[in-house]
Formats: sequence, structure tokens, C-alpha cells
Amino acid sequence: MALAPVLLQMSPDDNVAIVGNAGGLPLGAVLPDGTTLIDAVPQAHKVTLSAIAQGEPVRRYGVVIGYATQDLAAGRWVHDRLLSMPAAPGLTDLPKATRTAATGAAMQVPDTVARATFMGYRNPDGSVGTRNLLGITTTVQCVAGVLANAMTRITQELLPKYPNVDGAVALDHAYGCGVAIDAPDAIIPIRTVRNISLNPNFGGELMVVSLGCEKLQPERLLPLGSIPVAAVSDGACEVPGLDVVRLQDNQHLGFQAMIQAIVDAADRHLQRLNTRRREPVPISELVVGVQCGGSDALSGVTANPLVGRVTDWLVGAGATVMFSENTEVRDAVDQLTARAATVEVADAIVRELAWYDAYLQRGQVDRSANTTPGNKAGGLSNITEKAMGSIVKSGHRAIDHVLSPGEKLKPTQKGLVFAATPASDFICGTLQLAAGMNLHLFTTGRGTPYGLAECPVLKIATRTDLANRWHDLMDVNAGCIADGECTLDEMALTLFTLMVDVASGRRKSWAEHWGLHNQRVLFNPAPIT
Amino acid sequence: MALAPVLLQMSPDDNVAIVGNAGGLPLGAVLPDGTTLIDAVPQAHKVTLSAIAQGEPVRRYGVVIGYATQDLAAGRWVHDRLLSMPAAPGLTDLPKATRTAATGAAMQVPDTVARATFMGYRNPDGSVGTRNLLGITTTVQCVAGVLANAMTRITQELLPKYPNVDGAVALDHAYGCGVAIDAPDAIIPIRTVRNISLNPNFGGELMVVSLGCEKLQPERLLPLGSIPVAAVSDGACEVPGLDVVRLQDNQHLGFQAMIQAIVDAADRHLQRLNTRRREPVPISELVVGVQCGGSDALSGVTANPLVGRVTDWLVGAGATVMFSENTEVRDAVDQLTARAATVEVADAIVRELAWYDAYLQRGQVDRSANTTPGNKAGGLSNITEKAMGSIVKSGHRAIDHVLSPGEKLKPTQKGLVFAATPASDFICGTLQLAAGMNLHLFTTGRGTPYGLAECPVLKIATRTDLANRWHDLMDVNAGCIADGECTLDEMALTLFTLMVDVASGRRKSWAEHWGLHNQRVLFNPAPIT
Repeated sequence: MALAPVLLQMSPDDNVAIVGNAGGLPLGAVLPDGTTLIDAVPQAHKVTLSAIAQGEPVRRYGVVIGYATQDLAAGRWVHDRLLSMPAAPGLTDLPKATRTAATGAAMQVPDTVARATFMGYRNPDGSVGTRNLLGITTTVQCVAGVLANAMTRITQELLPKYPNVDGAVALDHAYGCGVAIDAPDAIIPIRTVRNISLNPNFGGELMVVSLGCEKLQPERLLPLGSIPVAAVSDGACEVPGLDVVRLQDNQHLGFQAMIQAIVDAADRHLQRLNTRRREPVPISELVVGVQCGGSDALSGVTANPLVGRVTDWLVGAGATVMFSENTEVRDAVDQLTARAATVEVADAIVRELAWYDAYLQRGQVDRSANTTPGNKAGGLSNITEKAMGSIVKSGHRAIDHVLSPGEKLKPTQKGLVFAATPASDFICGTLQLAAGMNLHLFTTGRGTPYGLAECPVLKIATRTDLANRWHDLMDVNAGCIADGECTLDEMALTLFTLMVDVASGRRKSWAEHWGLHNQRVLFNPAPIT
Repeated sequence: MALAPVLLQMSPDDNVAIVGNAGGLPLGAVLPDGTTLIDAVPQAHKVTLSAIAQGEPVRRYGVVIGYATQDLAAGRWVHDRLLSMPAAPGLTDLPKATRTAATGAAMQVPDTVARATFMGYRNPDGSVGTRNLLGITTTVQCVAGVLANAMTRITQELLPKYPNVDGAVALDHAYGCGVAIDAPDAIIPIRTVRNISLNPNFGGELMVVSLGCEKLQPERLLPLGSIPVAAVSDGACEVPGLDVVRLQDNQHLGFQAMIQAIVDAADRHLQRLNTRRREPVPISELVVGVQCGGSDALSGVTANPLVGRVTDWLVGAGATVMFSENTEVRDAVDQLTARAATVEVADAIVRELAWYDAYLQRGQVDRSANTTPGNKAGGLSNITEKAMGSIVKSGHRAIDHVLSPGEKLKPTQKGLVFAATPASDFICGTLQLAAGMNLHLFTTGRGTPYGLAECPVLKIATRTDLANRWHDLMDVNAGCIADGECTLDEMALTLFTLMVDVASGRRKSWAEHWGLHNQRVLFNPAPIT
């Protein structure tokens, strides 16, 4: 039986397309236009639709993703050695806030989305949690071993007493001492640790474990003036002020006394958390972080467009969606600045990407350091092609706000947000947590078991093969779009329904089911000492 | 009852001394020379022994630790605001390998030390372990959640079957992807992860958990040519070559299959580790990493000189001692280059410290970013004073070798080693593990519950108050030296005996007893992406 070739062309003027067939296409396969393949082409890899002369542009997504390094006949496999990377677009003379609002049927928010509610936990600061977790903040890595020990008791002795609490998370990290805490860039890790402790899923309870002599003193980590008052006083603590267990304090006579002090403090917070109940809240209270990792060429064809559609719906319904990953948007900077809601937003996008260019240059690299062996094996030839597939997650609406790394959304900041973070999965996720994410969408083509303790993560496979093999890790299979067995709109509704169920606590993501937790990894561009 | 003042003067030409009394000394207290205190002086803080005019040098350890910012009468408390910091010494025109060998009674190695043996695990590569641990190496943070899940089964189901194995350690880390892996400085985190997996306490067994698409591929992490062959073949694996569980491999159908593959691989390694037995080995097989953290002004008076004495003995007996902490030796660079065994070693010291100066400068800070609020509260006014107390740990012998961050000692490299690392406790410890440490000495004045899963850590308190309060965290109390209740030699023998017992597995450190494990924190001066 001859294989029916599935070709995925993103834009009418593209001169390459992606092979959708699960097993790829063999040499000699005949394409719908009669072209015969002169190479075998793996799934998700590019094939030339017409002859491309050496030095001529190769187009995908309607964008030049590189130049042919030799003459390419029609029907050739375009792997990364046949493509030279374009220079990064400049950061001057960009179009700013020039694009008219996207319209058309795809931008219509379905009624089921616009009117949707989910069952969330309302917080004193106006945010809404999707989980009811005790987060125990730490000022310094020194206390991590002691806190881990206390967590065993908290989990075994306390949590069973408080059935309305979903869990407890030790917010340990590698920062806090042995770092140049007054360096200009130190603000990034400091505010990240601070803002993670204020994530909506921790219900405004603040409990801190400190050593005592560390550079990042509790008062510096969480200056009371900067924190919503309800989070630390207003009945939230016996004594108004920060609830700190400081291991070096004289009253702790030995290790068990330290553990007991932590367990006692946790007990007080858990009692309060246990009184909370879910209530119906409008869908606009979702703060969704979108990310991709272990990408392949189908990421930009199936899973990322799926996320983009849901992003368009959610933002249209008044919710907040954050996209990130500086090096994966850098080559599309002109698209982003054009989509900025205002010139100020466009300028902020340029400011963040210029800062990141300089940061990479200090380390003698550029954005091309992003791509992985897995990306290339998966058909992504370079960062330009990867970026075009990555930004699809951000949909088509205007970009309303920009966050620097570790910054937190203000309660008034709704809509589409560019949270400027590195593309590293764990660092991006950590910074989106700090920004206030309460639900996380993660697309993957190669496959990753990524998960966070602080927030539900829904993982979306770009291809059916991965979804089948990792049947108990992938929450959604976007591969059916490439297979022709579902439409993007159908899958978007399926994904949206799952998001509401998971946000409401009626369902768990697979990562939650198995308790898969990646480290919070801080972005610290400042020196350590 | 009048308090008998205890003053600790480090060098005869010092014009300040440290108050040893546990509660400090009150205003009006009369010093042995008749001077009356005109300030109350806390314990471990400095007091002027004679008048010092504004701009004149203040001397401790026979070294200028700063200049008086105003006229200081005799009997004044010299806190950090009264002292301006000296400029860092230059890195040119330094004395190189000029010092004659230290002699004198203190340098005589006691027979009990010179002839000592401990019960260790001999490894195929010639190194000796003090513990018999399964280390499971990872290429990337993505796999951390899956491995943590597998570790629960390994700990509960497998370890009880293998009583000769001391434990299993998941060597997860924040590196491996989302990083500029070809940046010039990326070699540091890569070789650190590699060399930790080759630490003597893992017995030469190499087991790797990989995702599949990550930048740090197993073959790049552990290129077979660079690894002692015995570690990966020679019966150590069913199939010669690296033992890798790659989660994205097609044979893993779902999460439980991945877990089972890891557990099965661990079982094979544990079977071999379980056949190993301790045997008597000469004391020269110890590879001791020394470090201080949460220091106070007594660190340089009690605990660090104690460690320095043991260092002199151990190195004299043919063992290896590593000292580290770039920013805490920077101000003493001239002492170190003079003590270098050869001009090449002196040049290597200068090379490392110059590299670190430039690294700090890139982030717009210098070595003065090192000191912490706790240091200052503990009496250390600035990094110069802190450095003079810190290098005391290195004793008095010639410096034989220098390691760059993450490098591993060659089997032939014995003696006193400057392992050039940041001073951050966890990063220094991580890099000393990579260098091949099999026993860790850690001095502290403010107190830290620091511990490592990979290697026993003995913690030494600088003062009796801390040792009393943290009775089940501090392994040794060097405070008795300041109290006049023990001599340095007595305590050095006590510490040495404890080291032999712990290295032999007859005793556990407190950190081991409680299972206190800090994260391995990598030093990555290269950008992330």
C-alpha cells in the first residue's frame, strides 16, 4: 500500500513543507504535486517544494528561516547543514504597535469559553489560586536540609489532619548567600524568590525559614511595605509581621527544636489554609503560563498553534496568558513589536531583548546557542525556525504588558503578557511562577516529564507517537491535528475543558498524579562570591 | 565578681585584639595592661590595644586589615564603620615559591597521625572511598522528577537488600539544557557534573539517567576516553560502555516503564557495590576538603587554626587537603604565591584569582561582595580581615597543586591543593566533591546545618556557645581553645581521631545522622539561554 504523503505547509509562499507522516517518507515517495522525493525525509523534517538555488532564501511560516548552502532540487530533505542561519533582526527601526486588531472567525471567543467559570480559591490580594498549598519560603540554601527533614513530619503528621489543603512545598533554592547581593542584576533572583512566595496558589500565607547570618535577610526578601498587608497580618499571623523561623536564634536548642519550630509554624498556617473553600470565579481569573520544551518541527504545526488558539480565546475572555523564552522570540521581534498594544509596550519588548542580547554577548554567545541536539533531530534546523514555531503559542492578539525576569503581575494587569525569561524550561517555569501563574501549559515534541510542585502543568504532545508511548505523562495529544483526525478548534475546546477541570481541582494533571516536580531554578545573571 | 578579660592577639605587632569572653566585655572593663574599655565590646569583636590615629593602619594577623576612619583611643570597639577597607593587593610582582619550608614543633607530624590507617573502600582507579554509595548521574534537570520517584522505590525496595551499601544519591542538578553549552565557560559546569559522578565514594560505578534531546548528551558528559576504563567496563557493566537509561527511548512505554528501567539498572549496580568491603588503607588516602561558612571573628582564632594544624599533619603524612574560596584568599595572594611549591604553582594561583577578579568585574562587583551581615555581626569588619582568618585553614606547608573549578585531582596529585572555587558554601562543597574529596571539614561561628549526601561533613564550632546550643549538629567544639579549656594540639588530635572514625564508617557525622543534605549547586559562569 502506497503511503499517502502528509505535507504541512505553513504559509502559501513557503518553499518547504513539513512531513507529517508518523514514519517519515521514503526516498521515491511521490508528493501530491507529482514531485518525487530524492531523499528519505523523517517525520517533522522539511522537504523542498521547488528547486532552491544556493544562497536563495528558504521560507517557512512565510519567513526566511535561512539560506540554501547549495543548490537544492525539489523533493530534497532540508536538514540543518543545508541551511545557513539568517542574522538576528536589528532592534532599531521596528514597527511599534502598528498592527490592527486580529479579526476573523478564529478570533471569536466561543460562548462556552467566554461564560466559563472555574472553582478557585480567592485570595486577600485579589488573585485566585487553583490549588491550596502551604509554601514555605526560604532565604538561603543553608536551611534546605533542615527544612527537608521538617517537611517529612509536616507531610506525615500534619497534612492528613487538613484535608482541604492540597499539599506543602518547601521553596528552597540555590540563592541567599555566597552571592553578590548588591550587584545590579541581583534584583532578579531576589524578586523571583519573593514573588514565588506570593504565588496565588499559596493563599497569601507567608512563612519563612531563615538561617540568620545570610545575605538575603528575611526583611530584605520580603520587605513588609512591598507585600499585600493581608498576606502577613489581618489575622493571618498571631503577631502582625513576617512569620520567620530563624535557625540561629538562641531559643533553638539543637536540631529537634528547630524542626519542632518549623512544624509548629506550619501547623498554624495549615489550620488557616484548611478553612478555605473553592468558589466559582470567572475564567478571567486564570493566569496561564505557556511554554514549550523538547520541541520538534511539529511543535509549530500542532501543539503551539493549539495553545495559540486557546490563548486567543482566553485573552478575549479577559484572562491572562504569559508567553516567554527570550531566545525563542528574538528572531520574531518585529512581529512582537508590531503586535504591542502601545508604543510603550513595544519599547519594553525591545528593552528586554536588548538586555538579553547583551547578557549573552558577555558570555560570548548569541541566541543561536538555544537549539539542542533534540531540536535538530526533530527537524528544527536553527533558532530562526524554532522561534517562528515558538511564538505561535502567543496567538494573535495585542501584547498588553511586559514583565522583566522575576517581576510579578499587578492585579490590574490582565491580557496577553510577554514575561521576558530565558527559554530554559525550569528557569522559565520558575519565573512564570513568580509572575503569578496559576495554570501552566507545556508543549513538547521530543517529550519531557516536566512538572512543578507549585502549580498544575498540562503537557501537550505535538505528535501522536509520543502521546501513545507516554500515555500516562502527556495530558493532551495535539498530534491528531497533523494526523487529520481532529481539528484545531475541536482540540482547543478539549484542552480548554481540561484546563477548567484541572484549575477547579476536579482533575489532576499527569505530573500531579505522579508527583513529578522539577526544581525551581533561579535566573541569577549576577556573580556569585 | 569582676570578669577576667580574655583577649586574643594573633601577632605581636597587632594593634587590635579579639574579645574571647562569651558575653563580650562591658564598658569600663579593665584589660590586663590597665587599659579601661571605653565601649562595650561583643564577643569576637576587636578592641584597640593602643591609640590609632585617623588614617593609620589597623593590624590583625600581623597584616593591615584596614585604616582607622577616625582617631581611636585605646580600649575602643573597632566595628566595621571605623575601618576603611584596603585595596586588593595587585597580581603582579608577587613573591613566587620563595618561602622556605615551615619547621618547628608544630610542623612535626605526631606518630599517631603518620602511622594511622583508616578502613576505606579501594576503587579501580586507585582512589579510596569513605562511603559505599550508588550515585545516579543525570544529564539534565528535566529527568529530576522521574528520578526522584524512582529513588523512593530504590530506597524502599532495593537498599534493604544490600546492607553493605550506605545509600543511593540522585545526582540531579540545574544544568544540561537551556544553557549556552558551547560558551567558553561552560566547561566548568560540565566537568563538575562529570567529576562528581567519579567521586571516590561512588565506587567507580557509573549509571546515567538522560532525557534524550538535551544539550548535555551522555557521551558529552562522560566521554568514554576520559573515564578510567574500570569505571564503566571491566565487569562493572554487562555491556562495556556507559550505562544510560534514556527516558525518550522508544522502549519505555509510559512512566512506570521508565521507573522500572531505572530501578533495574540501579539494582545491577547495587549488587556489585554490595560485594565491596572496607580494608585498612594508609591515612595518605584521605582527600580532605576544608571550608568555612557563617564565619565570625573567632573562626580565625579557634576553628580555622585547628583545621590548619590538622592540615599540616595530614599533608605531612602524605594525604591530600584542599582549600578553596577565591574571595577569601584574594587578600592573602602574596602569602599563597610565596608558599607555592614551584613558580608554576604560584602562576596557577595568580591565573585563577585573576580570572575570578575579571568574573566579578563583569558583574560590576569585587571581592568585597563576599562579607555577610552575619560576618559583621560576628566581628569580621571586611573581606581583608575575613580572608586572613580563612586562609589559616590551609596551614603552613607548601602549596603543591592548583585546580580550576570543577577539575578533578589526578591520582598522582597529593599534598596541599588550592582548589579555586567561589566561597559560596554549597558551590564550594560541590566543586570539592568534583575534585575528589572523600571527607569534608567545615568550620562555622554563626552556625550552619550544612551537609552533603555524597560525603561525610564534620562541622567544627568556633565558640562554645554555638557548640552547646547546637549540641546535635556540631561535631567538634573548637571554642574550648578560646575558653582556655583545651589546647590546639589536644583538639587537633581529637579531631583527627574523629576523622579516622568517620572515614572508616565507625561513626557518622551529625549531618549524616540526621540526613541533612544540601543541594549540589553548580558554578556556571556561562549564560543560560
